Amino acid sequence: MAIVLGPNQYGKAETRLVRVRRDGDLHELTDINVSVALAGDLADTHLTGDNAKVLPTDTQKNTAYAFAREFGVDQIEEYGLRLARHFVDSVPSIQGARVSIEEYGWRRLGPHSFARSGEGVRTAAVTYDGASAWVVSGVTELVLLNSTDSEFHGFIRDRYTTLAETGDRILATAVTAQWRHAEATGDWGPSYAEARDALVRAFVRTYSLSLQQTLHAMGRAVLNGRPELVEVRLTLPNRHHFLVDLEPFGLENPGEIYMAADRPYGLIEGTVLRDGAPPPGMAWSLGRSS
Amino acid sequence: MAIVLGPNQYGKAETRLVRVRRDGDLHELTDINVSVALAGDLADTHLTGDNAKVLPTDTQKNTAYAFAREFGVDQIEEYGLRLARHFVDSVPSIQGARVSIEEYGWRRLGPHSFARSGEGVRTAAVTYDGASAWVVSGVTELVLLNSTDSEFHGFIRDRYTTLAETGDRILATAVTAQWRHAEATGDWGPSYAEARDALVRAFVRTYSLSLQQTLHAMGRAVLNGRPELVEVRLTLPNRHHFLVDLEPFGLENPGEIYMAADRPYGLIEGTVLRDGAPPPGMAWSLGRSS
Amino acid sequence: MAIVLGPNQYGKAETRLVRVRRDGDLHELTDINVSVALAGDLADTHLTGDNAKVLPTDTQKNTAYAFAREFGVDQIEEYGLRLARHFVDSVPSIQGARVSIEEYGWRRLGPHSFARSGEGVRTAAVTYDGASAWVVSGVTELVLLNSTDSEFHGFIRDRYTTLAETGDRILATAVTAQWRHAEATGDWGPSYAEARDALVRAFVRTYSLSLQQTLHAMGRAVLNGRPELVEVRLTLPNRHHFLVDLEPFGLENPGEIYMAADRPYGLIEGTVLRDGAPPPGMAWSLGRSS
Amino acid sequence: MAIVLGPNQYGKAETRLVRVRRDGDLHELTDINVSVALAGDLADTHLTGDNAKVLPTDTQKNTAYAFAREFGVDQIEEYGLRLARHFVDSVPSIQGARVSIEEYGWRRLGPHSFARSGEGVRTAAVTYDGASAWVVSGVTELVLLNSTDSEFHGFIRDRYTTLAETGDRILATAVTAQWRHAEATGDWGPSYAEARDALVRAFVRTYSLSLQQTLHAMGRAVLNGRPELVEVRLTLPNRHHFLVDLEPFGLENPGEIYMAADRPYGLIEGTVLRDGAPPPGMAWSLGRSS
Repeated sequence: MAIVLGPNQYGKAETRLVRVRRDGDLHELTDINVSVALAGDLADTHLTGDNAKVLPTDTQKNTAYAFAREFGVDQIEEYGLRLARHFVDSVPSIQGARVSIEEYGWRRLGPHSFARSGEGVRTAAVTYDGASAWVVSGVTELVLLNSTDSEFHGFIRDRYTTLAETGDRILATAVTAQWRHAEATGDWGPSYAEARDALVRAFVRTYSLSLQQTLHAMGRAVLNGRPELVEVRLTLPNRHHFLVDLEPFGLENPGEIYMAADRPYGLIEGTVLRDGAPPPGMAWSLGRSS
Repeated sequence: MAIVLGPNQYGKAETRLVRVRRDGDLHELTDINVSVALAGDLADTHLTGDNAKVLPTDTQKNTAYAFAREFGVDQIEEYGLRLARHFVDSVPSIQGARVSIEEYGWRRLGPHSFARSGEGVRTAAVTYDGASAWVVSGVTELVLLNSTDSEFHGFIRDRYTTLAETGDRILATAVTAQWRHAEATGDWGPSYAEARDALVRAFVRTYSLSLQQTLHAMGRAVLNGRPELVEVRLTLPNRHHFLVDLEPFGLENPGEIYMAADRPYGLIEGTVLRDGAPPPGMAWSLGRSS
Repeated sequence: MAIVLGPNQYGKAETRLVRVRRDGDLHELTDINVSVALAGDLADTHLTGDNAKVLPTDTQKNTAYAFAREFGVDQIEEYGLRLARHFVDSVPSIQGARVSIEEYGWRRLGPHSFARSGEGVRTAAVTYDGASAWVVSGVTELVLLNSTDSEFHGFIRDRYTTLAETGDRILATAVTAQWRHAEATGDWGPSYAEARDALVRAFVRTYSLSLQQTLHAMGRAVLNGRPELVEVRLTLPNRHHFLVDLEPFGLENPGEIYMAADRPYGLIEGTVLRDGAPPPGMAWSLGRSS
Repeated sequence: MAIVLGPNQYGKAETRLVRVRRDGDLHELTDINVSVALAGDLADTHLTGDNAKVLPTDTQKNTAYAFAREFGVDQIEEYGLRLARHFVDSVPSIQGARVSIEEYGWRRLGPHSFARSGEGVRTAAVTYDGASAWVVSGVTELVLLNSTDSEFHGFIRDRYTTLAETGDRILATAVTAQWRHAEATGDWGPSYAEARDALVRAFVRTYSLSLQQTLHAMGRAVLNGRPELVEVRLTLPNRHHFLVDLEPFGLENPGEIYMAADRPYGLIEGTVLRDGAPPPGMAWSLGRSS
């Protein structure tokens, strides 16, 4: 049986770009990490090493820098769209582009002074195939904790189940969420801010019987709050906090002292969709069907 | 428009398990990291927090430990199949299970002494849906370098291209490869060893005009060597090594002194398929279509 | 020549402890990482494996948890002092104890909801030798950036110097600072808050001709602001941001687009002392003279 | 009270350098990470930002690359000595230099092909003050495990002790060891190889009653085997492996299935000295007394 080339893509990953916009003495800072992936008519380089249809990844990096200067990086979704369109529209062999961006937050300390702020990283992933564009916005590394209002019981018990039921536990997670826009246009800044706020508010307000329930409430809150969004995908590690047994030391432990565990951890992944949403197309991936 | 629950899964991630098999004074060591993901009739826990159909992730961890004792962990593919089948076959609400395993290598130093060996981590991902099972084996964190026999030229030049063509560069990468088995049975140990050897041999022997060409040769070598394998997916970061400009110091640098860069890096992803291979089914993912 | 035992210490590192103080519906969260090191009459365990003078590291962990319940963890300096004194005063073979603590910040979102805040980690290191106690407070992983008001010129030029002088660069660093208290008593909370503020303020306000100058200003500000502190040690990596050359693309780059580099980085370490300060004793280390 | 400048140093950290020595078709690969720290007459840059006595860290990086070309990097101790002497001897304001190097291992796969080998990283730290030089060699990230021949009992039991005594446990650690040479000359290659072998052999052969005992045996073996070495400092995390309780599942667990824990971990640090060894001078640090 013959061996054939399957789906493939290539690009420059993790170009670190910092932009300083100087409006007199007041500076604005943008700090991003840009990854580009391109797909198209790339069989030659795979099969024979003929690179005539390959735009070097070094050029992709240069383009990321040049576009930041030419067009700014006001909203990462817009910046990503511009880059993705450029690669597909200007390079005949490239038929699809996906630009993934992380934006690190900085808190202003002065006119030109900033402190890196750690409450999550804003993300965007933009895909373009020459005709359509898809935009997914998101957040990652957003660590949240509720110290009560979380229960877990009523679950299946089999031969291997030893877990005690609990009516009061700590619920902690590091949120990774991505939400799909119905269209590739939008008011990206407010959309992001309100989607993120909806996630956090739902985490805070949900009396949780399972992390799945909290996940669903978070996704639903995003869709309820922003009509331009049609799908939310969430990945929530369950960062277990175990109540320490202090009885051997003659001490009670009424929900006060916990051991924060590293591994293993629960991992809850789920999707919340607007019924009748447009199909995702290439919103979630470029080159491969799964 | 209504908001609905989309694809979802949950499980215990990164259960660290070490098994010592004691055959008299001679010990065998197995060191693995097990992650389980389950999908099925899980709407209730998402929508109302009713956990009656949820097998706790803690139970999944217990099962991983108990099965290692009851059945051993001789080959991670077999161990993963047993776990995946157990969850689906014994829990009515669970209709799909995916077990992902990393196996860390140890080199024997004595009858019961070992040194952690760093040349890559063996991986397996097993998926079962109650009827069919799919097995993907692989390797990750396998760092390879050719100090010559790599060129890169003839590529597209556009307004943003400054890269010089080169007829001799260092080619270095950290291989992540996964290969799909046609069937869920196999001689897992030799299959892994030979697939891994084929990858490495192809990397070493390919005179490379692009990392894509090397990637394709690596995937092809795996399929050529092992008829039971039908698809190889490779992710190869291009770990750039830049020749240092020593001219300012009155020194030539004839391919001798390089700066090893961290970021950005090229990222080449590709698939090599056996023509007419059976469809992948759920081999590459459990809960989501992309 | 005989071979002899030199300085040694042992202990439990990185005990992760989360405390929830429940004052009705309003919860307070404390999240710390505790490391203990003990020194003393430990030759037997080194030379013969006789553990009669060894307090197990497991016991140290238990003690950390129990003390958090018995005495709270209001200020990490106080909690560390209590632990250090306990080990030395209650275990005859232990003559010195050092307790190092990291405290992770959380921002309140609600009565019992919190978001992990990333602007630095508070630290404390407490040492006790049975007679005296030393307290060092500090901060780490505090990432600061000035987008202007930083120059670097007038430096030595030798055969290997190619660096251009600059009158305007980005100055960015991840602050690790530790400050020594003159005595082992104090108003730890305000002392920490003001020392940290002084560091940040000095970073923001210093027009910098070198990172060393900024370092010195930061240390000096801490000592000027807090009379109970006598020494500040700072470790400041210089996180280089390189202006990207956009000329090949027909673009100027007037201090706007930078590449943020990972490695290598400058590393500036310095100490600022109050003249006539009491000697450091064991403030900076327990078991070894260097 | 006046505020004064205390000990300080600065330098370029983590310059990543790869050297390819081409002897016809057979290539030799050296892969290192170089960090330089310089001390001396540096008050001006701290106090006023006058950099007239500062050799830029960028120049230090350039020098590391240029020296690798001019003199090779055959043995990292020798390369470090050459760099350290250069900075102090050629720059009047610099009175002390410390060069720390990590060398990553690569296993040969072909004439010019290599795989990154993970069994530890070779290290060297060289200090020079204009008159004397000190050399410390070492290894780090060397992960070793004995699956038996390790006991732990007879320890102190106090109110907070719950640990069970054990006559058979897994002993696992990630070795960081540094050994001091009596003089700054040596046959660095064989010295390293044999010191490392002695460490590993002692770990394997020691029937251990405590990790301290193993540590001491490891240090002693290095000194016994190499007369040019006078001091060994070891840092050994105790990577706990807990026997999993399988009784709830009706299974015995006769030393077979373990959970490998991340945190907390024991941390054992100790020194083994040759009696009458020359004093360490600046072998262990450049700028600070502790």
